[in-house]
Amino acid sequence: VLHTHRREQLGDVIAATEETTTGVIRLRAMERDGVLGFPVIAVNEARTKHLFDNRYGTGQSTIDGILRATNILLAGRVFVVAGYGWCGQGLALRARGMGARVVVCEVDPLRALEAVMEGFEVLPMERAAAIGDVFCTATGDRDVIGREHFALMKDGTLLANAGHFNVEIDIAGLRAVASGTTPAREGVEGFVLPGGRRLYLLAEGRLVNLAAAEGHPATVMDMSFSNQALSVEYAVQYPGSLERKVHGVPREIDDEIARLKLESLEIEIDRLTDAQAHYLASWDQGT
Amino acid sequence: VLHTHRREQLGDVIAATEETTTGVIRLRAMERDGVLGFPVIAVNEARTKHLFDNRYGTGQSTIDGILRATNILLAGRVFVVAGYGWCGQGLALRARGMGARVVVCEVDPLRALEAVMEGFEVLPMERAAAIGDVFCTATGDRDVIGREHFALMKDGTLLANAGHFNVEIDIAGLRAVASGTTPAREGVEGFVLPGGRRLYLLAEGRLVNLAAAEGHPATVMDMSFSNQALSVEYAVQYPGSLERKVHGVPREIDDEIARLKLESLEIEIDRLTDAQAHYLASWDQGT
Amino acid sequence: VLHTHRREQLGDVIAATEETTTGVIRLRAMERDGVLGFPVIAVNEARTKHLFDNRYGTGQSTIDGILRATNILLAGRVFVVAGYGWCGQGLALRARGMGARVVVCEVDPLRALEAVMEGFEVLPMERAAAIGDVFCTATGDRDVIGREHFALMKDGTLLANAGHFNVEIDIAGLRAVASGTTPAREGVEGFVLPGGRRLYLLAEGRLVNLAAAEGHPATVMDMSFSNQALSVEYAVQYPGSLERKVHGVPREIDDEIARLKLESLEIEIDRLTDAQAHYLASWDQGT
Amino acid sequence: VLHTHRREQLGDVIAATEETTTGVIRLRAMERDGVLGFPVIAVNEARTKHLFDNRYGTGQSTIDGILRATNILLAGRVFVVAGYGWCGQGLALRARGMGARVVVCEVDPLRALEAVMEGFEVLPMERAAAIGDVFCTATGDRDVIGREHFALMKDGTLLANAGHFNVEIDIAGLRAVASGTTPAREGVEGFVLPGGRRLYLLAEGRLVNLAAAEGHPATVMDMSFSNQALSVEYAVQYPGSLERKVHGVPREIDDEIARLKLESLEIEIDRLTDAQAHYLASWDQGT
Repeated sequence: VLHTHRREQLGDVIAATEETTTGVIRLRAMERDGVLGFPVIAVNEARTKHLFDNRYGTGQSTIDGILRATNILLAGRVFVVAGYGWCGQGLALRARGMGARVVVCEVDPLRALEAVMEGFEVLPMERAAAIGDVFCTATGDRDVIGREHFALMKDGTLLANAGHFNVEIDIAGLRAVASGTTPAREGVEGFVLPGGRRLYLLAEGRLVNLAAAEGHPATVMDMSFSNQALSVEYAVQYPGSLERKVHGVPREIDDEIARLKLESLEIEIDRLTDAQAHYLASWDQGT
Repeated sequence: VLHTHRREQLGDVIAATEETTTGVIRLRAMERDGVLGFPVIAVNEARTKHLFDNRYGTGQSTIDGILRATNILLAGRVFVVAGYGWCGQGLALRARGMGARVVVCEVDPLRALEAVMEGFEVLPMERAAAIGDVFCTATGDRDVIGREHFALMKDGTLLANAGHFNVEIDIAGLRAVASGTTPAREGVEGFVLPGGRRLYLLAEGRLVNLAAAEGHPATVMDMSFSNQALSVEYAVQYPGSLERKVHGVPREIDDEIARLKLESLEIEIDRLTDAQAHYLASWDQGT
Repeated sequence: VLHTHRREQLGDVIAATEETTTGVIRLRAMERDGVLGFPVIAVNEARTKHLFDNRYGTGQSTIDGILRATNILLAGRVFVVAGYGWCGQGLALRARGMGARVVVCEVDPLRALEAVMEGFEVLPMERAAAIGDVFCTATGDRDVIGREHFALMKDGTLLANAGHFNVEIDIAGLRAVASGTTPAREGVEGFVLPGGRRLYLLAEGRLVNLAAAEGHPATVMDMSFSNQALSVEYAVQYPGSLERKVHGVPREIDDEIARLKLESLEIEIDRLTDAQAHYLASWDQGT
Repeated sequence: VLHTHRREQLGDVIAATEETTTGVIRLRAMERDGVLGFPVIAVNEARTKHLFDNRYGTGQSTIDGILRATNILLAGRVFVVAGYGWCGQGLALRARGMGARVVVCEVDPLRALEAVMEGFEVLPMERAAAIGDVFCTATGDRDVIGREHFALMKDGTLLANAGHFNVEIDIAGLRAVASGTTPAREGVEGFVLPGGRRLYLLAEGRLVNLAAAEGHPATVMDMSFSNQALSVEYAVQYPGSLERKVHGVPREIDDEIARLKLESLEIEIDRLTDAQAHYLASWDQGT
């Protein structure tokens, strides 16, 4: 979801902004390989973006998509979340909030440890495959759920993706191992595996919150788009200041969006007194 | 909690490590003011430190301290957390986990917004003061609860601190406005305000988890101390590489500690396949 | 949702079964007034019915209905639940699970106290009216939200009902006080109040989980319908045994359904040993 | 915890009241066996008793006892709760609230199903034994954790009881299979099993909330003792009205205590209007 911004008079790109985690990963790879053609502001890295849009937006809308596609009861089901980045964290939180027993799969030790400390069961996908009722990927990588996992799954298992593309679940592999199909609800494909077990793929493995529901609510996209708008304004105001690299959103923009959002919610907060601000900045006061 | 490490043969300080949020804030202030005498590794900034020790360690042990000091039922009480940094987040999470209705006070808009989205009520202290049953500060600043707040509080209110020092609650102010004292449990002081309302100060406003309980459990300090030990080793191994600044803990140390901690918990996680690692590093694959 | 069961050879009603809380309340009123024409088995009172269908079924499907109707972000919103019976409890739990700050309104002191101890804010509707973003009724009564409350509500407030009929919100009153209408999503009506505030009524005040979503998932209705089926079988088997009163579902049926449901979920549980069963039944063992 | 109440002038027992779940079970067994010598009011069965004291009181104080005895970090640990009655429910809720991954063991299918729907993992003790870090019983029965389970447990496992007596864990069995002891904190006994695994018994298997902490907070016992006091008053007022059976607490007493408790918390609730009360009592209004 790259947005490029041209200066009309010059006809060339001043800068671009990037909305997604996966996009930023790839742009950094381009920067590393020396092929980034213009500066990019990584909107995804604004705290007012990924802490809210990725976490609460993806979390809720993915649950929404799964419910609209299947109308299953989440309470009591084993819900496997692959990937415990911001999107995965939001999804795990919401799945638990709907009464599911949540299992997390991760490749990063630190994130795995965070999931453990939040009380989630953390398992390799191979072991999760055998116990899950619903699987949802949010990793930014490919083949997170593959043939070796389909082989272990229970009859009736649901497969969904809330990550970047339709490659997180190995759909070609699923089609290859299936001996046939079985009817299912709209937006759901039923595959029959040798032996008779049925696996159900939601929304063709595409983003289930977009394909089966309406995507993120406006009341969280407001912050993301504010980051876009103010980052573009910044790039246009200071065109010379940006090197051909991936840049963060300026801190002042990030803070201002948080302030405006609170205001729109009519929530007041405390302000530091001068004495408090001075104390925080000092190193010679206190015991 | 600054730890300095000397090279015996030289007799001077190679580097120091710092364990706490407040300590790092002050060391950065010293760096900014040009008075930092040696390099410092900010152990607090390791993810395996603040995401665990500050959050889960402080969260649990503060609840523990308040219960040992008072034996009150937390369920149904209004629990006000001042400061929604890592310590405050952990405390809010645990207070809610014990059935309290949690109110958060913050000065930072972004943190305030995170608290809102987690479902907490966010109020300025002036409004929280009138409705809270238990107050606990975790801000790193002074006079977060002061005379203007004592004046509004309900009879029987409990006051505690889980932040840096005994300055977060204005204790001198509390003594000044009190017309007398009232008996209370060990480790708790009861103050009578004009009109008869009683406010109870826990552990003299010092860290309630240390003063009234046993501090953080060993099973979370293990990660913090691993950061200390491996940071010292690093400083000794690469003495010339560190400028007179505040440095983060090297990422490899941080990751290694997470890996070791998972291992000690006998939790296995997935590993990226070569194809997956390649995909993550690429920018020319995918749709 | 009364189901009557006739004996073909006689042409008269042997017994009926009743599925809902409201239905049972009314049938008991009829029994009290001496106008109940045949025995009724109160399926709603089976534990395998109301503890699951009313709580987890209504809870999830009401959230589902509100999301489909509005696509609002629940995180951080003040969600007012009127009525803390089984349906209201389920709804409050799920609204919290989606990140909302939940306020409960009740008329029964004991239920109100349970809500308090679960960490919810409990307020009279008059005070909740001024702070809520979303209101949902689940009371079985009429005019729970009325003119005096509309007058206090914020601009943009959403009004929904998950209770028995479309009388829980005083819709006629809402139409009467509105000075006009305002466009809204499908299934939502926007009313403009004098002064310009807009209130949005979902699904015409009818059951939002049925009108805007798909009602309870099959995997919770299975238990409710098992109670129906086995209660009918019971009534047919023992036609003479039932007086013209409201009867509970026989305990053995209730227990058997729980056992079957666990089996279908492939969940094994412990069994009492003979020594344990004997101990439980005794009064002369132990200290 | 049976309380008997004598009429001085007669010298014989008018009635007794009983505070605990286990006590009531035994008194009902005595009634069944025809050996109950006087009427008993089952205070435990008041909703203002078991829904609060057993659930929130036992839940919090058991966590408190385990923390005081061990100072372990609960976040991320597998916490096994045996028995999902009111006490077990409260304990499971609080253990989850402290970040533990909770596993529930039950013999009753319906309670097991409730635990499943709350998102807990439900396992037979034989399977829980192998994965738990902390075990706590709340069953009212004997030998819930026995030799066959000790044999499966991990090194470092903690064993505690929040149930009726010190028979829920088979302590004699534990001593018999242990090859030796190992030092531990005060109030904790360490047993070494053949092969070297160490199991730790808290508070000699007695009620860990009483033995290692301070028992239930006063602010929940107030309701229990109000039931006691008002039940005694009732028994004295209506001495002839009580048969030699186990009686529930009169509903008016139960409701009055809820009302008084809310008042003491300064929480206001709604009242039914006459029209609402009439509607609830009717069967000929509505669609």
